[in-house]
Amino acid sequence: MNRALFEQVLVEHKLDGFLGTTAESVTWLSGYWAMPQWIRRGPQAYAFQPRKPDGGSFVVTGTGLVDHVSEQELCVSDVHRYGFFAYEDFGAAEGPESARLRELLKAPQHEGPAEALAQALKQAGLKGARVGIEVDGLAAGVLERVRELTPEVELVRSDAIAKKFRAIKTPEEIARLRESGRIAERSILAALEGLQEGESEVDLARRFHGRTVADGAFPVLGCIGFGERGALPNVDPSPHRKLKKGDTIRFDVGGRYRHYRADIARIAVFGEPSARAVQCHRAVQAGIERAYEIIRPGLPASTLFKEVMEAVRKSGLPHYRRNHVGHGIGLDGYEVPALTENSTDVLQAGMVMCIETPYYEIGFGGFQVEDMVTVTQTGVESFMTLPRDLMRR
Amino acid sequence: MNRALFEQVLVEHKLDGFLGTTAESVTWLSGYWAMPQWIRRGPQAYAFQPRKPDGGSFVVTGTGLVDHVSEQELCVSDVHRYGFFAYEDFGAAEGPESARLRELLKAPQHEGPAEALAQALKQAGLKGARVGIEVDGLAAGVLERVRELTPEVELVRSDAIAKKFRAIKTPEEIARLRESGRIAERSILAALEGLQEGESEVDLARRFHGRTVADGAFPVLGCIGFGERGALPNVDPSPHRKLKKGDTIRFDVGGRYRHYRADIARIAVFGEPSARAVQCHRAVQAGIERAYEIIRPGLPASTLFKEVMEAVRKSGLPHYRRNHVGHGIGLDGYEVPALTENSTDVLQAGMVMCIETPYYEIGFGGFQVEDMVTVTQTGVESFMTLPRDLMRR
Repeated sequence: MNRALFEQVLVEHKLDGFLGTTAESVTWLSGYWAMPQWIRRGPQAYAFQPRKPDGGSFVVTGTGLVDHVSEQELCVSDVHRYGFFAYEDFGAAEGPESARLRELLKAPQHEGPAEALAQALKQAGLKGARVGIEVDGLAAGVLERVRELTPEVELVRSDAIAKKFRAIKTPEEIARLRESGRIAERSILAALEGLQEGESEVDLARRFHGRTVADGAFPVLGCIGFGERGALPNVDPSPHRKLKKGDTIRFDVGGRYRHYRADIARIAVFGEPSARAVQCHRAVQAGIERAYEIIRPGLPASTLFKEVMEAVRKSGLPHYRRNHVGHGIGLDGYEVPALTENSTDVLQAGMVMCIETPYYEIGFGGFQVEDMVTVTQTGVESFMTLPRDLMRR
Repeated sequence: MNRALFEQVLVEHKLDGFLGTTAESVTWLSGYWAMPQWIRRGPQAYAFQPRKPDGGSFVVTGTGLVDHVSEQELCVSDVHRYGFFAYEDFGAAEGPESARLRELLKAPQHEGPAEALAQALKQAGLKGARVGIEVDGLAAGVLERVRELTPEVELVRSDAIAKKFRAIKTPEEIARLRESGRIAERSILAALEGLQEGESEVDLARRFHGRTVADGAFPVLGCIGFGERGALPNVDPSPHRKLKKGDTIRFDVGGRYRHYRADIARIAVFGEPSARAVQCHRAVQAGIERAYEIIRPGLPASTLFKEVMEAVRKSGLPHYRRNHVGHGIGLDGYEVPALTENSTDVLQAGMVMCIETPYYEIGFGGFQVEDMVTVTQTGVESFMTLPRDLMRR
């Protein structure tokens, strides 16, 4: 977590601490990655950090999930657990996790997540405090029950501020995002390897995700569309659409590496592209190249939007329209900043963003260049190593 | 969707229809799979079915997501969209999706999800109706705004009933779940192929997920733990723990095939198992074998729990404790029935369940057999083809 930014946002919102309840917030606030919370809706795990780093931070989780605590490095003082789970113990002592797990199981077992959370808030000395709470990850009834049990803590619904904390990445986050982006690049190359006429979108998708797995990431996004199907923004790879000469191939793709997302786009062409395809691609590529020229700390996101749109319009697509030309990325696929016309965000060093200029023309095709970049002290660093040109195969 | 069960549950709850707002419910009610809703928290797509199949069913989605509608088979009468998204159109007409996409874009563009939903409810003729609504998938403020715009429709929070509809699977759902389970089996075999001393858990996980991708599924769950790390219920494969002779290997794994989850478990052993490992495995295996003997329609889930627990206790683990011995599975990893001590669920033909008897002994190891099965008219059909024995490698 980025503690400086965290404190600044809490001061702005007059909060003494923040309680995260969604998978992304829990991981960011505490380093605790509770797998079931990431793969399903429902499992309750929470993380709290006080504004000042003087103790009182905690995680609340189910007894059946404290095993994760024993194998992960958490940055909290306390772990509170709820519910029964049968770990048996006859004193065998292999592995570094065993002792930690035993220690964790010595903590009292609370009835449910609300009871554990209420106790955790009390123990953290938050009497009279104003605590921001993310409601989005809470099961029905938990908030009401916690308020009943700890009326002395003021819980203020603050879902929207979680993304503000995460806007500026730490060097570790930047390193993971860079690697996540590079794995996506290598996966595009794998999908294009040995490309053959008559292959389906699904064939390419399997090679794409296969490489993502082989490189240590988890598949998430895999939009791969041939020709006119590239114009479907969320195209779901089809086993029926077969590759033919002259087809463009739109990739809008990216997995998750050590919890951090990738989201990049490239266009390939199988055989000779049409003049129109070359023109469309040149225009969207020009937009991204303009972005690289101007990104620096202090640039308003709305200015970036305007400049990129103009570059695309001047370079072959005068009618180009678009809601945004990119977005932050991190634990989630959409984070701060929003690169929109009316965005009030201002670029700052340490932000990691996707810059993108997708163009969808029904019945014809889709064209898109999307790069992951970070704003540096003096300008911009690209995470990408693949050229942005049309990839001819 | 299983219409008979849907109607029955709505009659019980005195509802005229149900509005789903989570990814699973939307897919189940309408056949609409909105990818961004599955991979992130936030994107708003809804599906409604009236109690009687006489029209009025609809989907509400963002304009940027109607492309999915054009490539999927939906079982609803209307699609309502909200928000601007730039699809350009110069009349090119390749591909079957183009005409459908153009048709969808003729529908009025509502301002936001609440406005689109309010209009959809009005148009479906629901004046005076009592509609069950799943609140869990709604963005903040949507429910309040819809109530303001359509005070004539009574919206009743009904999150809990969505799982009741899905309890009894259709033949198509059963076929997908069977294949999902089989892909998980083949992925276990792939992970064990060419097993070598000194390999890490991560090495096996990559082979596991690689096979899942190659077989057309998406990786989700991949708990693979060696020896004492098998006792961590949610073990996250480590690059550091190296395989050594005598290690047990616990797999609790499964991906998602055509949206349907797998969740199975097997134990392998590298070299000679200890007598204690053999004993533990025999006990948990005996529990599952007991389940196969007694599963049939009409059996109370609580009886199944009791019988399975007794079998494990009699077969080598007299101290065996456990919250549940399994759970339904479908679009989500945990569905109806719950196989617990106090469950009020009764087994019915068409239910698909995981039956499992995990045993975790700190510092020693984890032992687990988990099978996916369906309840038939006369008993039980296993989806599994792998033996349940300790897999010696």
